[in-house]
Amino acid sequence: MTVLGLGAMGRALAGSLLAEPANTVTVWNRTPGRDADLVARGARPATSVRDAVTAGPLVIVCLYDHASVHATLDPVADHLRGRTVVNLTTGTPNEARELATWAERHGIDYLDGAIMAIPSMIGTPEAAILYSGSQPAFEEHRQVLDAWATSTYEDADAGRASLLDLAMLSAMYTMFAGFLHGAAMVTADGVSAREFAARATPFLAAMTSAFEADAEIVDSGSYATDGQTLDWSDLSHLVRVSEEQGVDPAPIAMVEQLRRRQVDAGHGGDAFARIYESLRRT
Amino acid sequence: MTVLGLGAMGRALAGSLLAEPANTVTVWNRTPGRDADLVARGARPATSVRDAVTAGPLVIVCLYDHASVHATLDPVADHLRGRTVVNLTTGTPNEARELATWAERHGIDYLDGAIMAIPSMIGTPEAAILYSGSQPAFEEHRQVLDAWATSTYEDADAGRASLLDLAMLSAMYTMFAGFLHGAAMVTADGVSAREFAARATPFLAAMTSAFEADAEIVDSGSYATDGQTLDWSDLSHLVRVSEEQGVDPAPIAMVEQLRRRQVDAGHGGDAFARIYESLRRT
Repeated sequence: MTVLGLGAMGRALAGSLLAEPANTVTVWNRTPGRDADLVARGARPATSVRDAVTAGPLVIVCLYDHASVHATLDPVADHLRGRTVVNLTTGTPNEARELATWAERHGIDYLDGAIMAIPSMIGTPEAAILYSGSQPAFEEHRQVLDAWATSTYEDADAGRASLLDLAMLSAMYTMFAGFLHGAAMVTADGVSAREFAARATPFLAAMTSAFEADAEIVDSGSYATDGQTLDWSDLSHLVRVSEEQGVDPAPIAMVEQLRRRQVDAGHGGDAFARIYESLRRT
Repeated sequence: MTVLGLGAMGRALAGSLLAEPANTVTVWNRTPGRDADLVARGARPATSVRDAVTAGPLVIVCLYDHASVHATLDPVADHLRGRTVVNLTTGTPNEARELATWAERHGIDYLDGAIMAIPSMIGTPEAAILYSGSQPAFEEHRQVLDAWATSTYEDADAGRASLLDLAMLSAMYTMFAGFLHGAAMVTADGVSAREFAARATPFLAAMTSAFEADAEIVDSGSYATDGQTLDWSDLSHLVRVSEEQGVDPAPIAMVEQLRRRQVDAGHGGDAFARIYESLRRT
């Protein structure tokens, strides 16, 4: 098997493969000198991209971005015919789909992977990698994939793994901004951020259990509720208190705007989950 | 003891007190007819606010808003002298401070409480109530307070309970918006919101454990890192993918703006937690 791209993540992926003595691992990087420790552990350094991709049936790609993938693979497309490309380069759903189409045109079996881990987690079950695209490729190379992380096959649409990954990352970063905004509100009065974290961590962790009920409401398409309504969840006082604390209210003002849009459209008696309708494709 | 205000929360608080046979509970509501079930369970209906507040040393207030509290208590301020007011009306930190000052002027012991629960949770340890203001009042009436919820005394500053409560609620609503935004991104491709919740719930719950490290960075005031930097966390691709999915990118665009502000100020090599500096009081 071959690993193209020896950044921190590529090196972690190759290193994990080298831990299995039965594996023959060929490595390549655009700029030289990144393979020393891997070669010392038994990796074979490729002399060129062509040398690298013809070393075996499985080519693992972990490059800088979508453009780097094309720059690297386009010149050797003919040599990839009949082989499997597992692309773990970070990209968007549409980029994954574009590569899947390109691969099909060249007779290449294409599997796209989205890594939900940092390099140090590779090789542990805490790391998760989502895959989409060729299911035969996923099944055939399952043993290799499972050595890296908890691996799941999502869909034949090659863009699905990236989409799920990015949607979860988007939710995560928004949550982090919400936490840091809350921290800023209390540190303005001399409470430490750590003290706030000690309270907010178990509280927000517990509140994630409400996602399921919100999701059921969203999937049902009916926002009628005898519980908490949009009218009842007026967040303007949170915006005001943030301002009184001298803190930029951007995170909670964003939520209040999404809420307000539904209230103004006459849906104030509906469930809070209706702010989904302010966001979704119309 | 007296309960002023028999909305859903006031009734739950009074009901919980009636569960202890030793308690004598007097109840009052601005509009009549809300006390029937409480009276059936042994509550004494007050004939006036004055009758209500002079029934005993402890007056529990759970009204519509700050203005209702003044409208109800101002006319009987002289009768409250020497008694304790525990105010559980939802309000802002500054409103709590204003009432504490008002109470001090009238010789009233004032304790402000922020309820982190819905009425059905009152009387269970899952409900939490934060208190601030008079610590003697908290200690003296601890037994009553503990019957409602897990109660904690926060600070002599009467605004502190409200501030902590609103900061946590603000973080929670922002997290909900992030979840619903991620759901909108995937439902655009036919994945159900419930399927997204099944993944996002354990993922976001696990990621709350990162709050503590962010809080340590914030408290230290030094954002130097050998981990994930602001440059590395470019979120513009998340904004772009959201737009490609036909989804309003407001939640993640808000985070990206906070990040961009720090990068533009030359802090791209600092830790992600530095977006706190985009938010806090300057």
